[in-house]
Amino acid sequence: VMSGVLGAPDPSYREALMQLESSMQTGGRLVLSPAERRLDQRLQQLKEAEMKKPDFPPALHFFKARSLIRSSPMYSLLQKMPKGGALHIHDFSMVDAEWLAMNVTYRPNCYMCVTGEQSMRFLFSSSSPKPLPLCSPWMQLEHLRAKMVNTTDLDNSIKASLTIFTDQDPEALYPSQDVVWKRFEQAFMSLWGLVTYAPVFRDYYYQGLSQFYKDNVMYLELRALLPQIYELDGSTHDRAWTLKTYQEITRQFVAEHPDFFGARIIFTVHRGVNTTLLTAAIEEAMRLQKDFPEIMAGFDLVGREDAGRSLWYFRDVLSLPAKRGVSLPFFFHAGETDLEGTEVDQNLLDALLFNTSRIGHGFALLRHPVAKNLSRKRGVAVEVCPISNQVLKLVADVRNHPAAVLMSEGHPLVISSDDPAMFGSSGLSDDFYEAFVGLGGKSSHIGTLKQLAVNSIRYSSLSPEQQEKALSLWQRRWDKFVSENSF
Amino acid sequence: VMSGVLGAPDPSYREALMQLESSMQTGGRLVLSPAERRLDQRLQQLKEAEMKKPDFPPALHFFKARSLIRSSPMYSLLQKMPKGGALHIHDFSMVDAEWLAMNVTYRPNCYMCVTGEQSMRFLFSSSSPKPLPLCSPWMQLEHLRAKMVNTTDLDNSIKASLTIFTDQDPEALYPSQDVVWKRFEQAFMSLWGLVTYAPVFRDYYYQGLSQFYKDNVMYLELRALLPQIYELDGSTHDRAWTLKTYQEITRQFVAEHPDFFGARIIFTVHRGVNTTLLTAAIEEAMRLQKDFPEIMAGFDLVGREDAGRSLWYFRDVLSLPAKRGVSLPFFFHAGETDLEGTEVDQNLLDALLFNTSRIGHGFALLRHPVAKNLSRKRGVAVEVCPISNQVLKLVADVRNHPAAVLMSEGHPLVISSDDPAMFGSSGLSDDFYEAFVGLGGKSSHIGTLKQLAVNSIRYSSLSPEQQEKALSLWQRRWDKFVSENSF
Ligand SMILES: [Zn+2]
Ligand SMILES: [Zn+2]
Repeated sequence: VMSGVLGAPDPSYREALMQLESSMQTGGRLVLSPAERRLDQRLQQLKEAEMKKPDFPPALHFFKARSLIRSSPMYSLLQKMPKGGALHIHDFSMVDAEWLAMNVTYRPNCYMCVTGEQSMRFLFSSSSPKPLPLCSPWMQLEHLRAKMVNTTDLDNSIKASLTIFTDQDPEALYPSQDVVWKRFEQAFMSLWGLVTYAPVFRDYYYQGLSQFYKDNVMYLELRALLPQIYELDGSTHDRAWTLKTYQEITRQFVAEHPDFFGARIIFTVHRGVNTTLLTAAIEEAMRLQKDFPEIMAGFDLVGREDAGRSLWYFRDVLSLPAKRGVSLPFFFHAGETDLEGTEVDQNLLDALLFNTSRIGHGFALLRHPVAKNLSRKRGVAVEVCPISNQVLKLVADVRNHPAAVLMSEGHPLVISSDDPAMFGSSGLSDDFYEAFVGLGGKSSHIGTLKQLAVNSIRYSSLSPEQQEKALSLWQRRWDKFVSENSF
Repeated sequence: VMSGVLGAPDPSYREALMQLESSMQTGGRLVLSPAERRLDQRLQQLKEAEMKKPDFPPALHFFKARSLIRSSPMYSLLQKMPKGGALHIHDFSMVDAEWLAMNVTYRPNCYMCVTGEQSMRFLFSSSSPKPLPLCSPWMQLEHLRAKMVNTTDLDNSIKASLTIFTDQDPEALYPSQDVVWKRFEQAFMSLWGLVTYAPVFRDYYYQGLSQFYKDNVMYLELRALLPQIYELDGSTHDRAWTLKTYQEITRQFVAEHPDFFGARIIFTVHRGVNTTLLTAAIEEAMRLQKDFPEIMAGFDLVGREDAGRSLWYFRDVLSLPAKRGVSLPFFFHAGETDLEGTEVDQNLLDALLFNTSRIGHGFALLRHPVAKNLSRKRGVAVEVCPISNQVLKLVADVRNHPAAVLMSEGHPLVISSDDPAMFGSSGLSDDFYEAFVGLGGKSSHIGTLKQLAVNSIRYSSLSPEQQEKALSLWQRRWDKFVSENSF
C-alpha cells in the first residue's frame, strides 16, 4: 500500500500522462488538418449543447431520446458526415415500417390476419390463402381499406406491428429482456410475409440501400437469412436466387450511385437449429461462398444468444470448412449477454478460436480479459451497436456501455445499427450520435469520427485492393464534408 | 482482418485459455482446501437459485431488491462470513434510521422543526432553541408525543427523513442524479443535530461498531467529518476531542469484543470549501495525524464530485504535506462520475499523482486506461460500493458496474457500503451479495470472497505488523466459518 510523501505532482508529467491517455483512444493518434481542427471546435460546441440539456439524450432510452437527438444540430452534422460502411445490419430491418405500411401493404393481393397476441401476419397471393393456425381469417387489405372511411388507424396498427419502436413509455411496455425479445421476434414474423414476396424483396433491398445511402453510408455488410422468396402463385426461389438477386440489385444501385461502394452478404442461420440443419446450412454456405465470391462475405448465427445453443455446442459443424480446407469466413455474434460465466458467455472466446473475422456486439468482452486481448492482438473488430443493446435492455445508460471503455483503449471496433427499422433509428446516424456523445463523452473528437469511418472499411470483408478503392472514395467525400462544414 | 482456415480449435488450448482467464479474476489463484471447495459447491447452488428467480436481484434497484436479497439463503451465508474490514464508510451513515428515530429522538430535550421541503431538523437543548431560518417553530418531541394517541405516523415520518431508503418506487421518486443527491444531502442535514449531540455521538458510534460487528466485519476505516460536537447547554468540543472520543470508544469496543480488530479515522472535508478553509483543514489534519497516530489514518474530500471542485484545483493546498515533509496519507474519492472527460473526471489521475493510498469508488476508472494501469501497478485499491453507485444512479443494473470488469482482471479492490444507513443496507452483507452474485456472475466463487476479505486487510491503512495480526485473527474466524458451513 502506497501512502504519502513524495513531491507535489509535476504538471508536465501530469500533462504527459493525460496526452498518453488521449492518444490511446479511438482516433487519438490521427494527425488532423487545420480544417478538421476547425470542424472539431464546432463539434465540441455542439456536444456541450447536448450535455447542457436537462435530459442528456444518451442517458435516456432511445425511444424517448429520438426526437431530442433528431432535432439537434449535432445530429444534422453527423447525418451529413460520410460514415463509411455499416457492417452489422440485418436483412429485414433496413427499411422503416412507414414504407412497409404505406407502400408495400397498399400493393394489390396483400392479405392480412391477426394473431391472438395482436400481431399481424401478411401474405401476397393471387387467390385467398389457406388459413394460418392461431390467426384470424385472412382479409384482403385492398377490400378492407375500400370499406373504411378513414384508414389511418389501420395503417398505424400495421406500422406498430412491424417495429418495436413506440411513442409509449418503453420501460413500462418492455419491462424485461424476455418481453422485449418476444415483441422483437413477433415484429419479424409480422413483416416476413411482406418482405419475402419477390417484387417487394427487390424493392425492399433497393429501398434499404437508398436509406443508408441518404444517411451517407457508402457500403453495407448485410447479415441475411437468404430465405425462400415467393411469387404471387406460391412458387418459390432457392437461396442462390436470393443471393444473386442481392448481387444484381447491388450492382444496379452502384451503377446509379457512383459514390456508393457496394454491399456484401453474410449468410445467417438462426441459432435455434439442430446439428443436422446447421450442417446443411454450412455446406450450402461453402457452395455459395465458392459460387458468389463477389457478394458473399461469410457466415453467422443469429437470434437471441442467451436463448440459443452455444458455438461450442456446434463445434464439429463449425469446423467443417477448416477440415475440408475450404474458406468460409465467420462473422459471429458473440457476447450479446449480461450473464457472466454461462455456456453462452464463452461464445466470445469460441468465436475467436473459430477465427471469426469480427465480433458482433461483444457486449461481454470486458469481462473476458483473455478474449479481449486476443481480439485486440488479432485485429478482430467489435461491431458496437449501442442503440440495439440499450433497446434490448443490456444497458440503460449508453455511458455505461462497455464500448465506452473499448473506445478509451483504442480497441478495434466499428459502429453499427443492427436492426435500425425495428428500433426506429435510421442508417448509422443515430448510433453515431450515441457513440460520439454518449460513449465518447467529452473525450471524443473529430479524430474519433474519422477513425470510426476508416475502421468500417479497414475491418470490412473487402479485399485489400477493394479497401484502398473504398478508402479513397471515402476520403474524397470526407474532405468535401470537412471543407463544407468547417468555418 | 483474419478469416477462415486454420484447424478446428483444440479443446485443450481452449481449456487452457479459459483457465488462464479464471486465474486472472479476483481470488482466481488462491489454493482452496477441501472444506472450502465443499462450501463453494453450496455457494454455487445458492447462486443458481438467485439466478433462477423471475427478478434477478442485482438487476433491480436495491430498494426493490432488498427483501428478495434478505430472504435468500445466499444472504444468510454471506452475512455469517467474516468479511474483514469495511474501508469506505462515512461517519454518520453507520446506524439505521430505525435506531435514530426510536431510540435517539425519544431521549429528553429533543427538539424538531420541519423545513419548507418537509425535511426535519433536530436539536437537543436544555432550553427552547432559537428559531431556525426556513424551518417551522421548534417542537419538543417529548411534549408533542405526549399529546398524541398514536405516535406511529410521526415516528415513520422521522425515520423517512433520516434515510433515502423508501418502499415507494425509487425510480419514480428519484428520477435523476440531481434529485437523489438533493434528498441524500437533506437526509444528512436531518440527522446532523441528532448525531452531533455529545451523548448521542458516543452511543451512535458504539452502536455503529456493534452493527458492523454483528455483520461479521472486524475492522473499520471511517471517513469522518470530525464536526464540533455539542452539549445540552450549547457548549462545543473541538476536533481533537471528537477524534479522541472515537479512539476511546474504539478501544472500549475492542476490549469488550476481542474478535473485533479496531477502527481508524480518515478525516474528511466537504469539497465545497474554498482554498483558505481547505488549507486550515489540511494543517489541522497534519497536526491530528501527528498527535493521534493510532486512530488517524489520513485525509479525504467528500461530497458530490460532479458538483465540487477538482483535486487539481486544490493542488497547491494538497501539496502542503509533501512540501513540508510531513506524512498525511490521502484516501481520495475519485471518479464517482459518469461524465467522461470533464475537469472532475481527471480526479482519478490526480488522486494517483497525489499518491492516494486507495481510490474511493473509481467508477470511471475503466475509461482511464493510464490511471487504471497506475492504480494496478502501484497496488492502489479501488473501494467498490455497488449499492451506493446504483442508488446514486451511476448504473442501473449491477452487472454493468465497472467493478465486474475490475474483478475479472483481478484489479486491486475492496467491497464497501459507503453510506449503509442512508441506502437501507446494513454492514457489508448487502454489498457482498451484489458483488458476489451481480458483479461476479457465474464466475465468482469461494476464492473471490476469500480474496475480497483478505484485500480489505491488505489494502487497509494498518501497518504491516498490524495487518499480520488482523489477518491471523481473520483466518481463525474464516476457518471456523468454513468448517461450520461446508457439509
Ligand atoms: Zn445482430
Ligand atoms: Zn463515500
